[in-house]
Amino acid sequence: MEYRIEKDTMGEVKVPADKYWGAQTERSRNNFKIGPSGSMPKEIVEGFAYLKKAAAYANHDLGVLSAEKRDAIGQVCDEILTGALDAEFPLVIWQTGSGTQSNMNVNEVIANRAQVLAGGKIGEGEPVLKANDDVNKSQSSNDTYPTGMHIAAYKAVVEVTIPGVEKLRDTLKAKSVEYMNVVKIGRTHLMDATPLTLGQELGGYAAQLTYGIKAVKNTLAHLSELALGGTAVGTGLNTPEGYDVKVAEYIAKFTGHPFITAPNKFEALASHDAIVEAHGALKQLAVSLNKIANDIRMLASGPRSGIGEILIPENEPGSSIMPGKVNPTQCEALTMVCAQVIGNDVAIAFGGAQGHYELNVFKPVMAANFLQSARLIGDACISFDEHCAQGIEPNYTRIKELVDNSLMLVTALNTKIGYYKAAEIAQTAHKNGTTLKEEAVHLGYVTPEDFDAWVKPEDMVGSLK
Amino acid sequence: MEYRIEKDTMGEVKVPADKYWGAQTERSRNNFKIGPSGSMPKEIVEGFAYLKKAAAYANHDLGVLSAEKRDAIGQVCDEILTGALDAEFPLVIWQTGSGTQSNMNVNEVIANRAQVLAGGKIGEGEPVLKANDDVNKSQSSNDTYPTGMHIAAYKAVVEVTIPGVEKLRDTLKAKSVEYMNVVKIGRTHLMDATPLTLGQELGGYAAQLTYGIKAVKNTLAHLSELALGGTAVGTGLNTPEGYDVKVAEYIAKFTGHPFITAPNKFEALASHDAIVEAHGALKQLAVSLNKIANDIRMLASGPRSGIGEILIPENEPGSSIMPGKVNPTQCEALTMVCAQVIGNDVAIAFGGAQGHYELNVFKPVMAANFLQSARLIGDACISFDEHCAQGIEPNYTRIKELVDNSLMLVTALNTKIGYYKAAEIAQTAHKNGTTLKEEAVHLGYVTPEDFDAWVKPEDMVGSLK
Amino acid sequence: MEYRIEKDTMGEVKVPADKYWGAQTERSRNNFKIGPSGSMPKEIVEGFAYLKKAAAYANHDLGVLSAEKRDAIGQVCDEILTGALDAEFPLVIWQTGSGTQSNMNVNEVIANRAQVLAGGKIGEGEPVLKANDDVNKSQSSNDTYPTGMHIAAYKAVVEVTIPGVEKLRDTLKAKSVEYMNVVKIGRTHLMDATPLTLGQELGGYAAQLTYGIKAVKNTLAHLSELALGGTAVGTGLNTPEGYDVKVAEYIAKFTGHPFITAPNKFEALASHDAIVEAHGALKQLAVSLNKIANDIRMLASGPRSGIGEILIPENEPGSSIMPGKVNPTQCEALTMVCAQVIGNDVAIAFGGAQGHYELNVFKPVMAANFLQSARLIGDACISFDEHCAQGIEPNYTRIKELVDNSLMLVTALNTKIGYYKAAEIAQTAHKNGTTLKEEAVHLGYVTPEDFDAWVKPEDMVGSLK
Amino acid sequence: MEYRIEKDTMGEVKVPADKYWGAQTERSRNNFKIGPSGSMPKEIVEGFAYLKKAAAYANHDLGVLSAEKRDAIGQVCDEILTGALDAEFPLVIWQTGSGTQSNMNVNEVIANRAQVLAGGKIGEGEPVLKANDDVNKSQSSNDTYPTGMHIAAYKAVVEVTIPGVEKLRDTLKAKSVEYMNVVKIGRTHLMDATPLTLGQELGGYAAQLTYGIKAVKNTLAHLSELALGGTAVGTGLNTPEGYDVKVAEYIAKFTGHPFITAPNKFEALASHDAIVEAHGALKQLAVSLNKIANDIRMLASGPRSGIGEILIPENEPGSSIMPGKVNPTQCEALTMVCAQVIGNDVAIAFGGAQGHYELNVFKPVMAANFLQSARLIGDACISFDEHCAQGIEPNYTRIKELVDNSLMLVTALNTKIGYYKAAEIAQTAHKNGTTLKEEAVHLGYVTPEDFDAWVKPEDMVGSLK
Repeated sequence: MEYRIEKDTMGEVKVPADKYWGAQTERSRNNFKIGPSGSMPKEIVEGFAYLKKAAAYANHDLGVLSAEKRDAIGQVCDEILTGALDAEFPLVIWQTGSGTQSNMNVNEVIANRAQVLAGGKIGEGEPVLKANDDVNKSQSSNDTYPTGMHIAAYKAVVEVTIPGVEKLRDTLKAKSVEYMNVVKIGRTHLMDATPLTLGQELGGYAAQLTYGIKAVKNTLAHLSELALGGTAVGTGLNTPEGYDVKVAEYIAKFTGHPFITAPNKFEALASHDAIVEAHGALKQLAVSLNKIANDIRMLASGPRSGIGEILIPENEPGSSIMPGKVNPTQCEALTMVCAQVIGNDVAIAFGGAQGHYELNVFKPVMAANFLQSARLIGDACISFDEHCAQGIEPNYTRIKELVDNSLMLVTALNTKIGYYKAAEIAQTAHKNGTTLKEEAVHLGYVTPEDFDAWVKPEDMVGSLK
Repeated sequence: MEYRIEKDTMGEVKVPADKYWGAQTERSRNNFKIGPSGSMPKEIVEGFAYLKKAAAYANHDLGVLSAEKRDAIGQVCDEILTGALDAEFPLVIWQTGSGTQSNMNVNEVIANRAQVLAGGKIGEGEPVLKANDDVNKSQSSNDTYPTGMHIAAYKAVVEVTIPGVEKLRDTLKAKSVEYMNVVKIGRTHLMDATPLTLGQELGGYAAQLTYGIKAVKNTLAHLSELALGGTAVGTGLNTPEGYDVKVAEYIAKFTGHPFITAPNKFEALASHDAIVEAHGALKQLAVSLNKIANDIRMLASGPRSGIGEILIPENEPGSSIMPGKVNPTQCEALTMVCAQVIGNDVAIAFGGAQGHYELNVFKPVMAANFLQSARLIGDACISFDEHCAQGIEPNYTRIKELVDNSLMLVTALNTKIGYYKAAEIAQTAHKNGTTLKEEAVHLGYVTPEDFDAWVKPEDMVGSLK
Repeated sequence: MEYRIEKDTMGEVKVPADKYWGAQTERSRNNFKIGPSGSMPKEIVEGFAYLKKAAAYANHDLGVLSAEKRDAIGQVCDEILTGALDAEFPLVIWQTGSGTQSNMNVNEVIANRAQVLAGGKIGEGEPVLKANDDVNKSQSSNDTYPTGMHIAAYKAVVEVTIPGVEKLRDTLKAKSVEYMNVVKIGRTHLMDATPLTLGQELGGYAAQLTYGIKAVKNTLAHLSELALGGTAVGTGLNTPEGYDVKVAEYIAKFTGHPFITAPNKFEALASHDAIVEAHGALKQLAVSLNKIANDIRMLASGPRSGIGEILIPENEPGSSIMPGKVNPTQCEALTMVCAQVIGNDVAIAFGGAQGHYELNVFKPVMAANFLQSARLIGDACISFDEHCAQGIEPNYTRIKELVDNSLMLVTALNTKIGYYKAAEIAQTAHKNGTTLKEEAVHLGYVTPEDFDAWVKPEDMVGSLK
Repeated sequence: MEYRIEKDTMGEVKVPADKYWGAQTERSRNNFKIGPSGSMPKEIVEGFAYLKKAAAYANHDLGVLSAEKRDAIGQVCDEILTGALDAEFPLVIWQTGSGTQSNMNVNEVIANRAQVLAGGKIGEGEPVLKANDDVNKSQSSNDTYPTGMHIAAYKAVVEVTIPGVEKLRDTLKAKSVEYMNVVKIGRTHLMDATPLTLGQELGGYAAQLTYGIKAVKNTLAHLSELALGGTAVGTGLNTPEGYDVKVAEYIAKFTGHPFITAPNKFEALASHDAIVEAHGALKQLAVSLNKIANDIRMLASGPRSGIGEILIPENEPGSSIMPGKVNPTQCEALTMVCAQVIGNDVAIAFGGAQGHYELNVFKPVMAANFLQSARLIGDACISFDEHCAQGIEPNYTRIKELVDNSLMLVTALNTKIGYYKAAEIAQTAHKNGTTLKEEAVHLGYVTPEDFDAWVKPEDMVGSLK
């Protein structure tokens, strides 16, 4: 491989000749061979592209950067956003906890790419842009990385997580309406209980997701606040007056999301409670989705030796050894995602709790876990929706068979003959393998006519909504 | 010990003669000898007292319970709320996951206590109240336990957690104002960085807590929704029309908190995402408090071989072997609380994710962990505030000594001479153990006059707010 | 309340007149009003009683403590171990992270109690024992607290956890043998699969617990190492030569467990990886027990609308509203314990990861969580064993009905006619609601005679062991 | 793109014409678009390659597979192990929880690649190998996936984790020996304490890692047990007699690791406690490493306003804004890894606790988290060792300055003048900013000669080992 020599304040470094990155990226690449290369999420690089462009525009507006440099920076940022330069960002999550070299990676790529776009060669001659003095002007890793993280996190939540969850929620709600009159047995403690309708059951799931979406949205305000303008320790050293507000406005404009400058930059650098807060809501979604997916696979279990009250789509052969087997695989993928998100929440809490003084140095691990959770939930909801939820259908025969046999219909008699006599009826029928009606009449507590009038599953499900 | 015989639908049970509880409580006591007895949180019993009284009032208003029975129930509930009957609730967290026997424990105590108050004997004669048919009227364990849990959780958060955190936040804010002009060295990556003021640093902590309080408050709406009226599976079987709304109104009236009936009772029984959601915010507070307490003990470390920039109160002898030692013990208690809350969050997520069909049966463990976290955070913030935060004082001499020596003041030169020359000055001073000014002048990059004009810590801290 | 005045190195403190504790206990009581009082586990106090006595014996043997003082200390320690002085230990978990005041609490109680036993008054005259110079001789909080923690943890694991788990494991193993020939349908992905026997299923559970017990035992070696002798920072300052080995021998003798002195005292003070390690094994048990309890409640679900392949004891009325309902309550208690233990594991990991320099100051929170887990697992296994596992019985009728109907018996044909044709048979029978045999013959793939010879559930379960 | 038509038991599927995978892989690819494609760890594919080859050899030995088919399978497996076919495994973690389609992916690639190696075309003519009947012979996804998981996990732990940790441990041990006589101040509660040596401090870290390595090794026995031979539900249906033992022997031979067949296949399919167990030990390592890295960055903090007792290598410019700054970046990478591992442990516990009946269906998420942790710890230890630990050097000047000034040297006087007088000396010196000696003499408790004789830091550090 061919190399060129790059320099930084520590000296010379050999860098692959055809790469746009520079000395500091190369140092980090060599010093942190931990896990697969390039693991720093691409969404973070995108976040940087937005903020570098915004910083260039704000710097120009405030008189500290020329229009030429602004445009040179903006042009490369736009190119980064197309994904064309993805191979230029080889660094890993497991580097400095401030993401300094990922910031420098972006600075170096912008500077060198601008040089080439201007007809020059990488690393040669009087540079069009200096990585530190121009591209990084009015910035520090300490405020850029958390800004990139917030941009990436906000976008992932709003563009991937919420739409995915909403899609699934809408399907469940529609199914709930469709099957609102399908009376079925209820189950508590996994044991037979009083009836409800399939629509009510599915409506409960939809309600869970509605709460979860609301919880996530509650966290967006904090996530929309950007650290940029705080520079090294939150004081805004080396930034022009008014810069922080203006740069956030540009970011809002470029991304189309309502970002604002963080009112307290010290909080925004030293802690990442906004990430902790927002991921707490993602974890809530994971908790909800696990319950929902688990219920659905139990309701669909069988085909002959399970519950079997609903049918779900058959998507793949379920076994390499058992012919004809079909499994609730979408439920499995979704619950595995839930396990991951619940684990990620701990990694994020651990990192979030550890900042020292003016800086939290668990930024990349927090960002990576957050973005993984946000994407997995969104993707898995879409997958679950398309390949499972939309295909849910009642197994009417099975549903009717089970509800008609249920001993817990006896509960309707509580207000007529009291809890104790009702219990005696149920226990006797259970012991004898008979019906409630037989024993109710036999014990002399209810006439056959009253039994028929009082014990009707369809009257036991309350108002249907 | 003397016993009396009590009966339930399963048969006879020997119960301690002088206790108000009945057959089902006794069964649970015998069947679940897991951990210390009486571990079910007292706040839950209180929650039950509120809801049983409210149910009696609503049942009376709706014509299904006499005024005499309503008042008999109400009277015992009021007595429970005084704590006078605390010894009558011996059950543990680790029982049925619906808390059924804790519900019955309350029902039995109310029935038997009412009998005695009416001049009767426990368990004898025609009872004033029947535990199931009167005290539990229009109720199920499945809606009462989560209602008691929400009442207890809401009250704990609003009456203990938030006031405690606010008190500490107010102190930090006041200290922030007081020391807003005390310029000190900043630290990032634990390494010397550009200066900020002590007030800015403390203000960052206060901001963290303000965000945390807001996050907690965002979760109160969900927590204010009560399951009561859903009865066994959410359909409201065996409740009179309008009962759910009315009973929530009474609970709101009796507790003084804005409780409302849950719009979707299926969600309210089968999942406890409101608890997951609210505890997520408590965990966020734990994350914030851990950072704050950790910083404070590092800033106060010494007295001679640490950072030593602030002084905190000396509360106890710090060592049984090292004479004269004093330690940041409030920081330690608080960070231990944070560890507990972060662990509790996982227990709650685990339980919350596991419901089956119409019922989540991890209610007691979720409630117990939630209430522990809510109380510990509130108590620990008060303790930390009174015995530590209020006594924080700057060690002015030490602060000045450190900031004046800092190599990172060189950052002020970036915009004058560029990042690379500035780095050379700092590196040379570091290597030679000299001052920045000496090397800046010696390298010929800055005149002594310019250096003095440009490098002033007090000009490097931005706007003070 | 009456008070007396006690002194420590910081000055005078008012202490309740009738209590044996002294100035430092009282300071801690006042400074840490966090959660319920007396929350420091009693097992820790017991651990201290063992070690204080052992220290007195070792100190005497090595010539630095008189026989009279040794015996005075030993006498009170024995009294503490009876539980008679439990009310003298009012401190909470949430105090200094070294447990210094809990160490002093023991020192003070021993000193004052010895004074009274010698005919004196608390806190008056020339004391029989000095709390710091005699009772705490050759000790520091920094080595006593972790020693007490290891004694308590080791004892809890060996005396409570392991016996409880073994009892349950033995029952499951015995049931496995008893029902080894009961052929039933298997389920994978919750869906019908090839058959196995009930004994095999239960034997898998027993195997899980055997592995878990082994994992726990693997951690005992580390837990048996005691920090005592390290004093303040691990160097053993102010201890006589040979003290560390001797004091561990006395602790081993007094407790009957094979404790030894930790080979590296710096590790033993600054980290509590032994607690992390041993709790990791407790968490593994929680993971296993959750699976087992969950399976058992699913297998026992019904009675008419669930799986219903096994019967478990009916212990309590299962509902306050649904008459005659019975629930798998022991499974619920056990799985709630599992949730708690999994949460506690995170609290312990968090605390364990946070030590600073020569001391980990999350000792009490780690100890409390560990001891809770150890006890809960042991107690819950005993409860589950007695009230559930011992009563497991097959529902033979249901088991036979389900296995005979299963489509997955088709797997036996794989090696005869290949996977694809077997799949076609199963899919057709599923679609038509027919039997495998009907479709196998109808499709022309198998003769009726061959079908009967090849497809026998009892031949599909492998060797029975 | 060009496609060919493949068939499975559910019908026809369009597959990219140039890919070796078949119908089932393609179904899974389309049905699970969750997160980045190809996320199923490559180590799992390798594990499959070993086991498919071993199964072919065992099947041949036992007379159920021809030598030609055995060799055809073996040849492709060897090719997979070279990495040449990596692009043929596009599936994701978030698929069916049994990994069925990943098993089929391997079966399909082997069958189609063998076809091509034999001169045929993918998917055409009479196939050399049938994916289900030949490549998957005597296997099920349910026993192959966990076997592949154990092979991958065992190899990762033994080949990556342990060597990495041992390398770091050896460096710390060597440094410990090298600096065993460098007396420095100790710190407990972050506060000045009695002295120890730098070698003792570093030796404590080395001891932590030695315990951790031992804990990991304790878990290898369980991890070395392979599920293969259990097939669908653990009974070994459709396997020849003796197959399970033989196939494990071949796996042991091909991998060079001591794998054996699991004695209880039901446990091995339905639970993955071996993964939970082994990851518990990885988490313990994370806890230890977090403490160590945290200490090292605090000890190295400064250069002028921190502790500064040790020097660590300067690897990269530490800031994009603060010229000349250098940070403890290896500590940051390592502690971020620790946060991840601690989070992964929860994801694994969650998944491990959830199995249903005969199968745990959280296999891929457990495998992925495990393998990430194992690799990250190993890699990060190597990185930390090479770029940080090996370069640790004492800052002798600073160390001496701090220890000589320490007030806690007063502890040496305890055994001479008692704890209370010693405390008075320390407190007075602290208040007056004087030396211990001055106050000791001034208070009249010690003569200057005795002070010098008694208070020697080098005599307070115990035996040096």
